[in-house]
Parts: sequence; structure tokens; C-alpha cells
Amino acid sequence: MTEGTGGRNVARKLIASHLASGEMTPGTEIGIHVDQTLTQDATGTMVMLELEALDLDRVKTDVSVQYVDHNLLQADERNMADHIFLRSACRRYGLWFSKAGNGVSHPTHMQRFGVPGATMVGSDSHTCAAGSLGMLAIGVGGLEVAMAMAGEPLHITMPEIWGVRLTGVLPPWLSAKDVILEMLRRHGVRGGVNRIIEYHGPGLASLTAMDRHVIANMGAELGATTTVFPSDERVLEFLRAEGRADDFTELVADADASYDVTEEIDLSALEPLIARPSSPGDVVPVREVAGEDVHQVVVGSSANPGLRDFASVAAIVKGRQVPPGVSLDVNPTSRQILVDLTRMGATADLIQAGARIHQAGCLGCIGMGQAPAIGRNSLRTFPRNFPGRSGTKDDRVWLCSPETAAAAVLTGRITDPRDLGMDPPAVRLPETSSVNREMLEGPPPEDEARRVELEKAPSIGALPELDPLPDAIEVPVVIKVGDDVSTDEILMAGAQALPYRSDIAKLADFAFIRLDEGYPERAREAGQHAVVGGRNYGQGSSREHAAIAPRHLGLRLVLARGYARIHWQNLVNFGILPLEFADEGDYDRIEQGDVLRVENVRDALKAGKGIDVRNTTKDETYQARHRLSARQRDLVAAGGQIPLLRERALGR
Amino acid sequence: MTEGTGGRNVARKLIASHLASGEMTPGTEIGIHVDQTLTQDATGTMVMLELEALDLDRVKTDVSVQYVDHNLLQADERNMADHIFLRSACRRYGLWFSKAGNGVSHPTHMQRFGVPGATMVGSDSHTCAAGSLGMLAIGVGGLEVAMAMAGEPLHITMPEIWGVRLTGVLPPWLSAKDVILEMLRRHGVRGGVNRIIEYHGPGLASLTAMDRHVIANMGAELGATTTVFPSDERVLEFLRAEGRADDFTELVADADASYDVTEEIDLSALEPLIARPSSPGDVVPVREVAGEDVHQVVVGSSANPGLRDFASVAAIVKGRQVPPGVSLDVNPTSRQILVDLTRMGATADLIQAGARIHQAGCLGCIGMGQAPAIGRNSLRTFPRNFPGRSGTKDDRVWLCSPETAAAAVLTGRITDPRDLGMDPPAVRLPETSSVNREMLEGPPPEDEARRVELEKAPSIGALPELDPLPDAIEVPVVIKVGDDVSTDEILMAGAQALPYRSDIAKLADFAFIRLDEGYPERAREAGQHAVVGGRNYGQGSSREHAAIAPRHLGLRLVLARGYARIHWQNLVNFGILPLEFADEGDYDRIEQGDVLRVENVRDALKAGKGIDVRNTTKDETYQARHRLSARQRDLVAAGGQIPLLRERALGR
Repeated sequence: MTEGTGGRNVARKLIASHLASGEMTPGTEIGIHVDQTLTQDATGTMVMLELEALDLDRVKTDVSVQYVDHNLLQADERNMADHIFLRSACRRYGLWFSKAGNGVSHPTHMQRFGVPGATMVGSDSHTCAAGSLGMLAIGVGGLEVAMAMAGEPLHITMPEIWGVRLTGVLPPWLSAKDVILEMLRRHGVRGGVNRIIEYHGPGLASLTAMDRHVIANMGAELGATTTVFPSDERVLEFLRAEGRADDFTELVADADASYDVTEEIDLSALEPLIARPSSPGDVVPVREVAGEDVHQVVVGSSANPGLRDFASVAAIVKGRQVPPGVSLDVNPTSRQILVDLTRMGATADLIQAGARIHQAGCLGCIGMGQAPAIGRNSLRTFPRNFPGRSGTKDDRVWLCSPETAAAAVLTGRITDPRDLGMDPPAVRLPETSSVNREMLEGPPPEDEARRVELEKAPSIGALPELDPLPDAIEVPVVIKVGDDVSTDEILMAGAQALPYRSDIAKLADFAFIRLDEGYPERAREAGQHAVVGGRNYGQGSSREHAAIAPRHLGLRLVLARGYARIHWQNLVNFGILPLEFADEGDYDRIEQGDVLRVENVRDALKAGKGIDVRNTTKDETYQARHRLSARQRDLVAAGGQIPLLRERALGR
Repeated sequence: MTEGTGGRNVARKLIASHLASGEMTPGTEIGIHVDQTLTQDATGTMVMLELEALDLDRVKTDVSVQYVDHNLLQADERNMADHIFLRSACRRYGLWFSKAGNGVSHPTHMQRFGVPGATMVGSDSHTCAAGSLGMLAIGVGGLEVAMAMAGEPLHITMPEIWGVRLTGVLPPWLSAKDVILEMLRRHGVRGGVNRIIEYHGPGLASLTAMDRHVIANMGAELGATTTVFPSDERVLEFLRAEGRADDFTELVADADASYDVTEEIDLSALEPLIARPSSPGDVVPVREVAGEDVHQVVVGSSANPGLRDFASVAAIVKGRQVPPGVSLDVNPTSRQILVDLTRMGATADLIQAGARIHQAGCLGCIGMGQAPAIGRNSLRTFPRNFPGRSGTKDDRVWLCSPETAAAAVLTGRITDPRDLGMDPPAVRLPETSSVNREMLEGPPPEDEARRVELEKAPSIGALPELDPLPDAIEVPVVIKVGDDVSTDEILMAGAQALPYRSDIAKLADFAFIRLDEGYPERAREAGQHAVVGGRNYGQGSSREHAAIAPRHLGLRLVLARGYARIHWQNLVNFGILPLEFADEGDYDRIEQGDVLRVENVRDALKAGKGIDVRNTTKDETYQARHRLSARQRDLVAAGGQIPLLRERALGR
């Protein structure tokens, strides 16, 4: 589809209004002007070090916000040292700072900063949630967020636009989570790769902006570049409740808009769904697995962040009791939502029923506490259940709606909420939210900002030193992994690893250990080495540490059947060469320990044809290809963005 | 003082009514019948393994309750595995189980189980808090709690009774915490050793039962055996509010009661006090340190657990805002208190002001999260600020009242609350509490209990194997420490170490590292070894792991200027010989690395005279003494209680 043929959809309108370079032809590289950025603390410390390396004076975006929502447990001094550093960097470079306790980035950003028609990049894979407001919001690696703050456009492959037409109305006991679980049931974790999902049709009218957040957020689990919704009456209602009606602009598809790919969901025909352990793509009807014992239920996260989600659970458990042997954990997503929930009386209902109310933040969703027991079922309203992401090796985490979660809380078993024998919860939300901007600290004026010193505790560390890519690579395969390996498996999050996110040498000890505890030692022994991956390699979280830590151990080459978008870009950003098998079958021919050789790397990349990868152990050669633009080839050859940043800073 | 001369005080009435052996002469060993026990999860797993080793069928106490309040962060699967194990053990052995989220043991026990006139032991040093209800409640090591559950009396040294007469009424802005801080200001962390503190006098009338809990709880910080208050009208009020007026019995001192030691505090003359880093005994007026920057304020813990404490903070910050750069963390002490606080509207006030509301539990008080940044001031309403207990090496933790904490929240500096320029908070508490017993699971009937299987995940571990004490000890001094070293320094709590509490080999890696990171390695190299301590060695937490872990590394002998009661008992229980310098000056003559020799240990202990400790390195001999009863001599010689328990179990 090209401009001019038929009416335009929302996604193309958003891209067209921000196009900095390229043509809007799917599969080609385009540049997009970036209006807003979002960072969180797990990825933000590295971003701030990158701003320092860039010698940036002040962010060039309209709005950049640093959230503290990931590392809130503070098992030692590192987390608070990060919070202090991040705040000082925000004051220095002109970002907003959202302190610990204010809430999870995505819903908080939506409440306070989201603007229809704007673009945003965020160093968090669920940044796409802002598509709920008619924004083009894309999760990327931290380096790209830093570049966006410095005024550079974002470069992506122009995706196809996937129009999903919604009709009907959700039946009682179903909610937005069941819509995105239906998409995952149909298409799995690779269904959205190189696509923007755009929802449209009459079914939208019954979905609030926060319902749409639920659906947009988990577009990341389909592997989509992002998700967009129109900015319509529901968005205006939302902004009005947040005291920001002035920020509203309508942005809807043309009446005759068309899409590259089309799909239809009849909301009224859906039933409660659940993703089984341990993939968001392994979705089945709840009734198919009903009766399994449940040991823990966790409500919250950016995948079910809304007041209605918590209030619904509260209404279902009100006057009842969590049974012995079951833990109900409630993670409010923002300070504001917790205040509103409390004023409605719902917080007291939850506590009285036996809930453990936690501070506002991501918590168990990124393995920051709440780890379940081995082999025991944990039902969560979260977006992801990759193996071990919960903090427990051999975990059994399921993903479901708040209604299905609440049903499990009451029965101690997986239960279709329609089988509870109760009336569906009738939740009446307040018309306006308890807006409080006090935990958002705006940046000082430029004069004052220039005098701010960065407050770096010893645990903050520095950017890693990265050398250029050698022109001849000859390296052993230190690990070979299967399809759909997530960045949680490449570099686990959680309370054990995340505190070391600024200490790359220590962090590297956690690389790949969810899959193979021997990797760090073998990689250290091998020095420079390769990894062989399956399809959709590096899905999930945007954390660039999943590139940096293996790079620190000597990773130079990844040869995979295919890549998830953000991790592929992170490999490039950190100077790791990502190649794809021309013939997927060659994947089976390589074993761990084989030595791979690529000669004349720079010329081979430039030639634009197949690249020979020689397996010197097996004495055979495979054809590989790359998807690097000229700009990206230079990046990989230089050893990644950081050496380039350093050069730029030295040049001044 | 002996029975019959003058009227009896409350403490002696409590002991007399439960005396199992011995005479009530201070300094001699007595046995006391135990009515109730309390265990928490950090110490409870070991206790349950001990019950198993004892082959106990069902606890013989009136009431035994296992609380889950310490390890609530769940950074990996270990904590939930413990919760599951503890619940199964409660069902097997006939204990009550208070699940995660129900609250901190001490206030929860007071609300639901505390009975005036009863005795209790608990494997938590703050068990003494129950003295607020006219109970004789003593913190001990886990093994002694296990013995009490098995029907054995508790053996202690009969303490002196220290009568503290309270007069007057606390001025505005002061509260119970300032009373106990005044005691610590006057007497320091050793002031209460071998004493029971008994409060009496007209000043009591203005202190609620929960105010008295604050004072009784931190009697532990004075080193006291316990604290008692009378059971009077204030106690009846408390029990009535908890729906338990029937559990009330009056227990007051005779009109002509006398005390071994006497003291007087005029409440109306007190001013706001604060304990400086890093000892609860380093107390000064708040005004003396006013103006210091504050980075974190934490409200909660068993030292300020009451609804009034949280409601007061809420009233002070209501409509105001926590400044940027300051974190206000609120740790509700129980589910019930959080429900009441929420219904009063105070929870919403706290959140709106910027507070991070955490789940009900101990949390930062035992280093489970909330670790401050290095060198930044953290004000806490907690009972303890031993170095590193917060989870941060080189921490700066201060202890104060909720009012002083709230003043720091508003100003970002240490501030005498009287200098805020506000009216003092007027808090009106509900007359009855929102009682909910549903999170307390009672034990099943005996038939059913016998069929319960213990649910032991691999992380639960087993009791350590302990060999008998050799009759000739010749061991190097692997570490020499100063006065008032706490069990937090001997074996740190916190999110890093506590999850390993059932894995002694791993836990031992944390022994003494707050003081000297080289200890575990040196101890492993030395094998059998000695530790030289100063005064009040092992103050603080009751955790027996501070004995077990060094024992695992080969500790056989401690030679100190003096001991804290619970740790001394734990050393005995785990077969470590605790000797005291006859001449305190000899402490200075020993250096790390010196080899100490004690010959014919069993005979020397029996002789009841001085024991020769030969320093073969320096070629000199010191006189030492012990305080072991005949029963305890056998215990140490056998290698501790566990080998004896094993023998008993085998004997059946």
C-alpha cells in the first residue's frame, strides 16, 4: 500500500506526520521524529550514562520522563543510589522525574503526559501501551532513547499495518485482557512481527482508553512494532477525567481507510482465556484448564493497570476470603489509582479479604519479588510468563484477566469466572481522577540545570569499553538455543540480577543461566564467541543488558533463524553482528562447540548479497543474510553506538 | 528481695505462678512453665525441623502461633517454599498459622492471642512486647521455643526486677517511643541486662496498651530479660476493642510492692528524642541534631505498630507533600491495622502525600528491602539501627517516634516536631477494631493432624550435624570484635542472607562479613576456631543462625567480656563454649591469630572455679569463668541440643 491509494489509517497518519527519512514502503528503513521519550530505572541508568557520553546539554524532545518503577525492593544500597543518580541526571538534562511510589511508567505516562497524535520511544518494550491514546509509541533499546533525546530520529523498518476490526460488545465477566489473549491465541508470539496493529470498528465504542491500554500494551507479546488505537470520544473522556481535556485532538482513520493485513474479532463471541506456562502465546479457554490448584494470584502490572481492573477484583472478593494456602498479591499501578481505589472503599475490601497490598510499581512482573514456589500455579494479570521471569526456576505462571484471577482467588483453583455462580461485578468508577502531580518533578530552567552535578555512587559504574568488529571473525558457538527465547532468558531480570545492571562484569554472570548455567564460564574461556538462535530470538523485554552482558563476555556474532525487533536493534547498537540463516534448515547442522568463520566482514556486509558462514569444525558453509542498513553496518563495524558517541564527544 | 518481704510486683507474681524449678533469687537458674509460644518465619523453619527431630506429636502449650512476617519479598522460590513448609508443620504439630499479609507477629499476637497473666516464649527478641498486656514474654532461641512446645519449662537466670515509676503525662508531640528512648538515653544498650523492667505509677493511666507495646518491645534494646506492665483498665479497653473482653484478668502490683532496682520518669518533662547511627543506645534530643538532611523516612515495625502511630503520621502529612528526594515508606504492621487506617481515610491521606504503602510485615526493619543509600540519613520508627541491619553497609539509620519521623518527611531535615509550627495531630481512633480472624488458620483435630505430611521443598534443608565438644580445645582466634556487637553483625539478616536460613553451608558465607569480609574464608581454613568478643556480645535479634553459621565453620569457643542473654543461650544450645574474662583487661592482650588452649574442658567446667585459657602464641594464661548450670554444661559437652534431640528421637 502506498500513500494516495484509498483513505489513510491512523498508523500511517501518525508516521506520515513524523516522517524524517525514507518512504512508507513496508520493509524499508524509515526515520521518524520523536516527540516524547519514556525511560524506567532498570534501563534508565544506562541511558543517562549515554547522555553523559553524548555530552548532551538538554533534551530536545517535547517531553522526556524518567520513571522509577522497576527496582523498588532495595535489598541493598544500589537501588536508592540509582534513584538518586537518575534524579540528578533528570535535573541536569531536562527530564521529568517520576519518583519511586508514583507508579508504573505506562499508565502513569498515559495519565499525565500522553498526547494523541504524538510519537514516543521508550526503553521498555511495553511503551506501545500509549497507542491507546492514538500515539505512535515504540519500545526500543536505551541507546535509541538517548539518541531520540539528542534530537535524532528513530530508524525502524516500515511495518505493515494490520487492521483488526472489532465488532460486538464483551459479554459479562470478560474484559479487555481476553481480547489481547484472543489475538495471542490466534497468532502466537511471532504473529505481529514487523507489523503495527491498528484496532478499528464499532466494537471500539465499548472499550475505554484504559481498556485499550490493556490491548495495546500486550501487542508487545505478539512481537508487533507497536499498536495504535484512534483518538476518539473515549480518549476525550479519559483526558477529561485526568483534567487534561485540552490535550485532546481527534485522530481517526479515514472512512475508506485500508490495511495491509486484515482481521476481525467479534467481542460478543469471546470467552475467558488464559495463557499457560510458560509463553504468552500458549492461550486456551479457561474452562479447558479449570480445576488446577492455584497457589498464588497477582493482580496489577501495565497489562491490567486500570482502576476498573482492581475495583473489579475487589468487588468479586468483597465479603469473601482468600482460602488458606493461597496468596493474593495486589500491585497498584500508580499512586493515583491507589488513592482512587482507596476512596472507593475497594482497598479496604481487598485487604479484608486477605490481599497483600504492595507499593505501586512493577514488582513481580519483572521478578522483583513475589516469586512463586517451584511447580505451583501462579495466576497473574501480567503481560509475560517467560520461563523463570518470575524469579523462580521451573515456575508455573499463567496470564489471565482480573476476573479470572479473582475467580481463582475465591476457589483456590483455575475457574472460569462465569462459573462462580455470582452476579458479575458492578463497578462504578469516579468521573474524575484524584490527580496529583506532586511526585512528578519537572526539570529546572537551563541555567540552573547546567550547574547540576550528576550524583554517581560507586555502584553506578560507567559505559563499557567496546572495540570495533574484527574484519575476520572465527569464533566457537558457546550456546545454541531454540525458538522464541526471550531476553528474560538471555539476561534475567529480577531481584538477584537487576541490582547489578550498572556493573556489567558482575551482571554478565547471569547471562543465559536460565537456559544453561555453564554459559558465562564457557564464554569467558572462549573469549570471542558466537550464539546460534532459533526463530524470534530475543523476544520480550527491551533491556539492552541482554546485548551488553554477552558482549562483555566476548559475543561478536549471532546466527539465528529470526529476531525480535528490539533485541536485534540492541545487538546492532552494541556491535554484535546479527545474521540470519538463508536456509532455516542449516540451523540443525550446527552444534555447540562448532567454530564459525566469517571473512572480510565489512565487504561482505556491503555487498548486499549472501554472506558465507564457514563451519570449520564440520567443514561446511552456510549462506546467511543480514538486514542492516548502511547506517547500521557502520554501527556494527565500529563496535556499536558507544564508540561512536565517544568519538562525537571527543570531537567537541 | 525474697518472697514474703513486702508486697509483690507484677513480674514476681507472673514468675511465681509459673515456677517449675528453682528459687526466685536473682542470679540463680529457674524453670518457668510456658503457656504460649510465638515463632516467625525467619526462625520458624528451624524450629519446625527441631519439632520433627523431637518426634513431637502435638504441641503441649495452650497456644502456639507461627507467623509469616519476615521474608515477604520472595526474590526467588525459597520464601514461598518456607511458607508452604511452615503451614504444613503447623497443621501437623497443632500450631496456629498466620499467613503472609496478616501482619507482624508482636502486634498481631497481642490483638488475637495475648492473655494477661500468661507466659510466652518466642523465637524473636521482641517477644517481650507482649509484656504490654501483663504477660511474661521472653525472646529466646528457636530451640528453646521447640522445647517449650514439647512441654519443657524455660530455664533462665532469675533476673532482678527494675521498677520504673512513671508520673505525669506526655506533652503534645511526644509519644511512647520517646519514653523508651529516654530509658535508652539514660542506660544504653546494656542497662537492662539480667533485669525485668516493670513500669508502674500514675503515669501509666495515660498510656494505652498499644503505647505500652512500644515501650515493652524496645526493652530488648536495653538488653532486658523482658518488660512487664500491669493488666489494668487500659488493657481491658484494648481487649474490649478486639472483641476479647472475656480474656481480661486484672494483674497489678500489690500496693506495697517493692523492686530490686528503682527509677522514675516524669513523662511531662520529656522531649522528643532520637537514636543516632548506629546504636539504639546513642540517644540525644532531636533539637541537638536538627537540620541534618533526610533522604528516607520509614514508619512501622513492632516498635511503633499501633493504629495511632500511622494515623498520627497521616494527620501530620495530610494535604502536604513529601519533598522531592525524600522517600516516605509506610509498613503497616497488620492487616487489621491497615483496614482500620484505610477506613479512617488515613491511608488515602498518606498515599496522596507521596507515601509508598507496603504490605503488612517487618520489611526494612530486618533489612528486607528499603535499604537506604550509603551515607544518607534514614529516619525510622524501628527498634534497631545496628550497622548494616538496613541492608546497606555504611548506612546512617536513626530511630525516632512517628511524630519526629513525620516532621522529617515534611521538611526533608531532622526536625523537632514541636518546631513545625502546626497544631499537634488530633487523632480519633475507632472504639472497636475491624477484627478478622480468617487469615489465622487453626490446627486441625489430632486425628487429621497425624495424617498431615510435611511439605519440604529442596531448599528447606535439614538440621546440621553437630559433634560433641572436644575435651581439649586448641584453636586460633579467627576474629576479635569490640563491645556491643549485634547478631545483625555476626549474621546479617536482610534480603541477601535470610533466604538461605535453611541452607547453613551457604548462610555461613555471610557470617561476620558486616565486620570483616575475610572471616568466612579464614574460619574455613582454620577449621575449629575461637572468637574473642567485647561487652554485651551478641545483642539484638534472637536468630540462632548467628550461632549455627559460625558453628558450621568450626567455632567451638567464644571468649568475651560479657554476653547478651539470648545469644549466650544460643551458643550453649549449639554446643559452642561461651567463656567470660575474669579480668576484663585480658581482652586487650589477645590478637587475631593467637592460638587459645583449654584443657580438660569437662572437668574444668564442673569444678566451678576459674578456667585457664592458655594463649600459646603469647605464652600467657588468662582466667575465665562460665555461667553454665549443670544442665547447660551437659548441653555444651554433647555438642548442643540437636544431638540430644536426635538421641531422644532414636530412643523411641
